[in-house]
Amino acid sequence: MKFVIDMMGGDNGLEATIPALDGFIKKNSDVEYFLVGDETKLENFKNIANVHVVASKSVLAMDVDPLTALKESDSSLMVAIKTFLENKCDALISAGSTGALLSASIFKIKRLPNITRPCLITSFPTIKTNKKFVVCDLGANASNTKEELNQFAIMGSLYYSIIYGENNPRVCLLNNGTEEEKGNELTKEAYTILKNNKSINFIGNIEARDPLYGNIDVLVTDGFTGNIFLKSVEGTAKAMSSMIKEAFKRNFLSMIGYLFSKKGIDGIKNKMDYKNVGGALLLGVNGVVIKAHGSSDPRSFTSALDNAYKLTKVDIVNRIKKELE
Amino acid sequence: MKFVIDMMGGDNGLEATIPALDGFIKKNSDVEYFLVGDETKLENFKNIANVHVVASKSVLAMDVDPLTALKESDSSLMVAIKTFLENKCDALISAGSTGALLSASIFKIKRLPNITRPCLITSFPTIKTNKKFVVCDLGANASNTKEELNQFAIMGSLYYSIIYGENNPRVCLLNNGTEEEKGNELTKEAYTILKNNKSINFIGNIEARDPLYGNIDVLVTDGFTGNIFLKSVEGTAKAMSSMIKEAFKRNFLSMIGYLFSKKGIDGIKNKMDYKNVGGALLLGVNGVVIKAHGSSDPRSFTSALDNAYKLTKVDIVNRIKKELE
Repeated sequence: MKFVIDMMGGDNGLEATIPALDGFIKKNSDVEYFLVGDETKLENFKNIANVHVVASKSVLAMDVDPLTALKESDSSLMVAIKTFLENKCDALISAGSTGALLSASIFKIKRLPNITRPCLITSFPTIKTNKKFVVCDLGANASNTKEELNQFAIMGSLYYSIIYGENNPRVCLLNNGTEEEKGNELTKEAYTILKNNKSINFIGNIEARDPLYGNIDVLVTDGFTGNIFLKSVEGTAKAMSSMIKEAFKRNFLSMIGYLFSKKGIDGIKNKMDYKNVGGALLLGVNGVVIKAHGSSDPRSFTSALDNAYKLTKVDIVNRIKKELE
Repeated sequence: MKFVIDMMGGDNGLEATIPALDGFIKKNSDVEYFLVGDETKLENFKNIANVHVVASKSVLAMDVDPLTALKESDSSLMVAIKTFLENKCDALISAGSTGALLSASIFKIKRLPNITRPCLITSFPTIKTNKKFVVCDLGANASNTKEELNQFAIMGSLYYSIIYGENNPRVCLLNNGTEEEKGNELTKEAYTILKNNKSINFIGNIEARDPLYGNIDVLVTDGFTGNIFLKSVEGTAKAMSSMIKEAFKRNFLSMIGYLFSKKGIDGIKNKMDYKNVGGALLLGVNGVVIKAHGSSDPRSFTSALDNAYKLTKVDIVNRIKKELE
């Protein structure tokens, strides 16, 4: 297994990636690592047997224009892409700009057959123990066509089947109502295509309040709406966790209360914490390209690495590619 | 103060509205009530001094086509609209179909000057004590133009100023990133208009994870995206509340823990419970038209009535109308 890691991307850059890699490399000796970034800061990794340090000179800004990004060949992301291709790597992980990662992946790593736009996909927790659902697109794209939503549904179904061993995953379209005629122009048209797609198990529209109850498997949406959904869920969960923390601090008794119920309450916080989510797969390109959270800390970057490991292990990309051909 | 209430609308119809009105009428004797619905079921209200029962024959389906709705003049909603106009009422409250309420309000009650599309607006809680923000549009429209977003920003600012006594409310555009150039076609174009609108205090884009932190006042968005935001927040809050409940039930100690921290924890559940939100104002039409939650129970329908009372008391519509002229 060969991994390329953009060590410089994300709001926290090396402060997140170095501790994450320190821990991950110790645990996973079956991976060959290519760490791309400021060579002088990565000295300590050089004497580890299965690690290569690859020098890059600049870092792309988080709000870089994708076309500018493609031209900055000395940047950590573009060097990472080059390293990925030259060494026939399995996975590439970056916390840098989504737009830059998307366009560099499309132009250099290339798309899977019959896919016009890749999407970001990841698993969300539900109130049911061990039950998750996946959402695609979480924001690789700022807008999408109905045909692209159909591609997301097909790829999302295959992804869910492989990861969760479910043969006929239930696909829903995120919409402002459940009835067939509900929605904006895009969702109305996408509904018709999805309904007529015999290769997926489309069960209809779903409103944003329902997926967390654990009754669906694949939530299909355009990248703009998916991004709103992701961040609303994430923000609400984080806000509620912080309110819970305050509630327990009210007085002496409530602090005792916390001690008595700590295990369950911490379990919820943990379950709903995006830092454990592990980054999203850029599904639809020819490799395991993982977009780690832009504000990744060591813990969330580690989750992204874990995710890359798991997805590479099940050979996700080649299996989906085969189905698409 | 004169209120018209569509007693039949919503998933629960009379089961929600009768208990809500029973309680509300007792508390608020300064209101003249017009209760529209199945006369035989509203007998008990007939002998209350300030209450009129107005008979309607049918109920519009929740997924009724808006144009069909306009023609069903015997339906509780259309009779309510007629009663509203004939009696020069202040407020109309319905838990029925949003689309029907919107089109009936536009065609019969009419729009405010310079407003092409009304929007649904309501307040959201934040992690800060007593700090709220408003969101418009929550879903009156399935899609909007950039000019309509600008109208929402203007009306939302006026609304916030009147309700919260804030002179220069901070307006943000809900987007998939904070940078000016981020977004889909609509948000990019709306950004430019909002930035150049000197009558509002536009502070830029905001991502969906941030409004709950209490640093903005007015969140502007198209009706489709606003609806996704509303329901994501609502669904996540409800899912977390149910997980918290389960966590406290784990064992004997955690149940004791709950007793010790009950006040704070119940406060959070309460704060984040949409049933307390009180319905949304259809802002932009010539009256206090309140859309109560479709799945209203007695508690949430009561909140909608409370909201109508509060908004009528401050003369919200006439004050906004004056500013728009």
